[in-house]
Amino acid sequence: MAGFADKRQWGPTPRYDRVRAYEPKQKDFIVIAGPCSVESETQINYVANAVASAGATHLRGGLFRAGTYPNDNYGIVSQDLFKAFKYAAGVYQLKTVIEVLDAHSLDFVLPYADCLQVGCRQMQNYSLLTRLSRTNKTVFLKRSPGATIDEFLGSAEYLLKGGACTPVLIERGSATQATHVRWDLSISMIPAIKSISQIPVVVDAAHGTGRRDLVVPMTLAGVAAGAAGILVEVHPKPELSLSDADQAIDPNKFKELMFSVGQVRNAIRGI
Amino acid sequence: MAGFADKRQWGPTPRYDRVRAYEPKQKDFIVIAGPCSVESETQINYVANAVASAGATHLRGGLFRAGTYPNDNYGIVSQDLFKAFKYAAGVYQLKTVIEVLDAHSLDFVLPYADCLQVGCRQMQNYSLLTRLSRTNKTVFLKRSPGATIDEFLGSAEYLLKGGACTPVLIERGSATQATHVRWDLSISMIPAIKSISQIPVVVDAAHGTGRRDLVVPMTLAGVAAGAAGILVEVHPKPELSLSDADQAIDPNKFKELMFSVGQVRNAIRGI
Amino acid sequence: MAGFADKRQWGPTPRYDRVRAYEPKQKDFIVIAGPCSVESETQINYVANAVASAGATHLRGGLFRAGTYPNDNYGIVSQDLFKAFKYAAGVYQLKTVIEVLDAHSLDFVLPYADCLQVGCRQMQNYSLLTRLSRTNKTVFLKRSPGATIDEFLGSAEYLLKGGACTPVLIERGSATQATHVRWDLSISMIPAIKSISQIPVVVDAAHGTGRRDLVVPMTLAGVAAGAAGILVEVHPKPELSLSDADQAIDPNKFKELMFSVGQVRNAIRGI
Amino acid sequence: MAGFADKRQWGPTPRYDRVRAYEPKQKDFIVIAGPCSVESETQINYVANAVASAGATHLRGGLFRAGTYPNDNYGIVSQDLFKAFKYAAGVYQLKTVIEVLDAHSLDFVLPYADCLQVGCRQMQNYSLLTRLSRTNKTVFLKRSPGATIDEFLGSAEYLLKGGACTPVLIERGSATQATHVRWDLSISMIPAIKSISQIPVVVDAAHGTGRRDLVVPMTLAGVAAGAAGILVEVHPKPELSLSDADQAIDPNKFKELMFSVGQVRNAIRGI
Repeated sequence: MAGFADKRQWGPTPRYDRVRAYEPKQKDFIVIAGPCSVESETQINYVANAVASAGATHLRGGLFRAGTYPNDNYGIVSQDLFKAFKYAAGVYQLKTVIEVLDAHSLDFVLPYADCLQVGCRQMQNYSLLTRLSRTNKTVFLKRSPGATIDEFLGSAEYLLKGGACTPVLIERGSATQATHVRWDLSISMIPAIKSISQIPVVVDAAHGTGRRDLVVPMTLAGVAAGAAGILVEVHPKPELSLSDADQAIDPNKFKELMFSVGQVRNAIRGI
Repeated sequence: MAGFADKRQWGPTPRYDRVRAYEPKQKDFIVIAGPCSVESETQINYVANAVASAGATHLRGGLFRAGTYPNDNYGIVSQDLFKAFKYAAGVYQLKTVIEVLDAHSLDFVLPYADCLQVGCRQMQNYSLLTRLSRTNKTVFLKRSPGATIDEFLGSAEYLLKGGACTPVLIERGSATQATHVRWDLSISMIPAIKSISQIPVVVDAAHGTGRRDLVVPMTLAGVAAGAAGILVEVHPKPELSLSDADQAIDPNKFKELMFSVGQVRNAIRGI
Repeated sequence: MAGFADKRQWGPTPRYDRVRAYEPKQKDFIVIAGPCSVESETQINYVANAVASAGATHLRGGLFRAGTYPNDNYGIVSQDLFKAFKYAAGVYQLKTVIEVLDAHSLDFVLPYADCLQVGCRQMQNYSLLTRLSRTNKTVFLKRSPGATIDEFLGSAEYLLKGGACTPVLIERGSATQATHVRWDLSISMIPAIKSISQIPVVVDAAHGTGRRDLVVPMTLAGVAAGAAGILVEVHPKPELSLSDADQAIDPNKFKELMFSVGQVRNAIRGI
Repeated sequence: MAGFADKRQWGPTPRYDRVRAYEPKQKDFIVIAGPCSVESETQINYVANAVASAGATHLRGGLFRAGTYPNDNYGIVSQDLFKAFKYAAGVYQLKTVIEVLDAHSLDFVLPYADCLQVGCRQMQNYSLLTRLSRTNKTVFLKRSPGATIDEFLGSAEYLLKGGACTPVLIERGSATQATHVRWDLSISMIPAIKSISQIPVVVDAAHGTGRRDLVVPMTLAGVAAGAAGILVEVHPKPELSLSDADQAIDPNKFKELMFSVGQVRNAIRGI
């Protein structure tokens, strides 16, 4: 032996049987947009209207979220807001995407959710993934900031295990030494995953940078690299957002972004 | 402003109220030892005897474990093995430490567990932490390889929220660019946590390096840095271990390690 | 204070006076292409012809390179190859880019180099940067895999200190925990630098991934994020390349890439 | 193939011929101490006296240093201070350690330097390493915050190439996602290097954490892991230090540290 053992020999050999075999039923471009938190009926209606008219396909709203500290106060979760969210999405023909934190929140969320989202902190919550794999929902799975491609796809295998759900992966940035961003998007994760699986990968440049001024260029970078969709936080007045104010864009900026996304998608057509 | 915003301004302001105020009831040095997986009654008895006579205080056994891929086969989990594990620990006056993966496994595990362990993948499984915070058990919480000190202590806040459990933190290495180890122990995490909290921190050099030949020096490094305890994988014949064969040591090596740990603890007494 | 000090408070306060004030004289899109190593007169002529006809502006050739180990043998450095390189570039109206390792190689290289390149290992070789800052050349500076934006721009300040050279920055990937790439391109570095400086940033997806199959999508990602140019390794038969065989593309692939780059540049025009 | 290529297959195969074969002539424990910057004759005399009486073997002084930005002002470098430094070391029978930035500073420094130091930014400045490999000096080589063990030992190969100098490696921390330290000491680097080479490794907990309160526990951790020496910044009044005020300790603390270091060395004797 010349040098040292490599990182890859340490873990179990990856098994991507289901991940490799997976064939998506439809391949429409995914555009998930909406506020970080649903703050009121007026706000969610306004945003739903704006993002739908710009071409969004899914409405997000951060209704159930967990904070790093138990005292973090993310929005006011009420059944009324869930109903308002569901209603607004329906009016503008958007599919709803709601995060699930655990089995308990799943039961609560199911009536309002067309699609479910698993946050990065639960990426390896295998009980939850196994439970979700048996639902008939589209499940958006976020990569944990410290996860390798093997750990990410390993979790996708769990989602595919139950045979019922439709998995979509979301790249939302790595924890690195970088100081110019909160997390650093691993754009290369997108074509790397595409090289072995047809599971769609969505780019989330809002969480993946933490900087509003980088959302547009980094979303476009993800699309140019082959992303199957985008996730964008849109707020009527981003600077007044109750949470994640630093990374949301306003409806006008979103409309411009959607135009550029279309242009970039055309530019890489056929690659 | 001269340069860029810093990483810390992006997240919510840490709240360490409970973490700062916490006062442990007892401060005995913790020595968790045992096989990666309980393989048979004979094996666990042999190991329990060996580690107890060398000074261990807790017996671990990897009875419930999740693999990165759903096909990973970690040991054979049977009620008989749980009973054998509990019995062996009792004979040698060791406290049992059993990992819980979810609320369901908690119910199963409770009759056999003096202490519970939360693996790094569930470090931010807040539902599970909240549930555990209401048990009267000691709960060992492992740091996720990508987690910052704030995220780690944020999870400790969740453990303290319920007011019933006794939290202990385990440092088990970070995901970095290093290629000489599977994960790289952040030994500095130990004194850094000590500088703001009295929650004990245990060093796990087995998972924290992935290399058997580094277990002894890195365990001693952790102790010299002020660790409140150690976690070591001990197997009668490490090279025949059914899992994690690369990082377990044999009972003789463990006995030598325990002697050195005692020496190092004496060496830093009073610092 | 609630939590810990932040990373940024530890170092000296960044001074970007020159970096902020810098105004490039011309803003033509930069396309640096060529083999990892110049192997023969025939090879470099063939490549120069191919990349020029596809739209390249600069010819690279890895004539002076340092290996991680002193025994690494990178090409055969002879004055004849330098002449052949310079000649081939001249025939096809390409500017030559040659790496300098130290002051000594600078003297040797100057007659053949229209532009100079500083490799990532010399990013903080301040003596060399200071010396180069007094030449009338364009100097391409590669980011070190471990460098933050502050360290990168700090080195750019050194390049601007002498007042003579024209600086261009190259993003070529970070050392991270990722296992799917050799280094992981920090695409966000491109718009982040643009947000405070007009120094052009070029994306190098060959070194920045280490995977030939990712060169096209990651180059396009860099362009979509606002890169001022691209660096691509082109080899007549990449799999026969004497060095870095894993990351070069062939002339046909390069031609296709150039077409897509043009399309993506059009797509983001005006953003 | 089950998963992805590993990181290690991308680079050239490491060649550690000289690194593996190296046998140090003497194995005395190394204690490098002194101020971050020599500020005055009085200061350096005071510190030299203090550290020598506590057991230091080498005096450091940061006479030649480069800042990340060209405007950083590190001390006032004058020939008088070099003389005072050399004189102070001589009085207390300490060997001088002076950093060299480039070939030019080497000539200037040689009359005053018993030992030379290469900073982390020049770790892969192969011209400088090759030049130093032909001196009869002890050369202390610092690991770059982003360097893998292969890159570090590759540079050691360069130092051994000339056949004249005596190499010593210094571990001073990695750039990681950690926010609790400026850089995070990779303590595991010490036993990992020991597992293939007898080149001594010194632990530098001052730069390796950036926090004065972590210098003592992290230095002891390095010693417990098998470090062949320590590097400590000592200043009469650390909080008044002109540079790196956050990481120096005062002479009393250094004396206590030296006592504990001796205790820990005894504790691990024979391992």
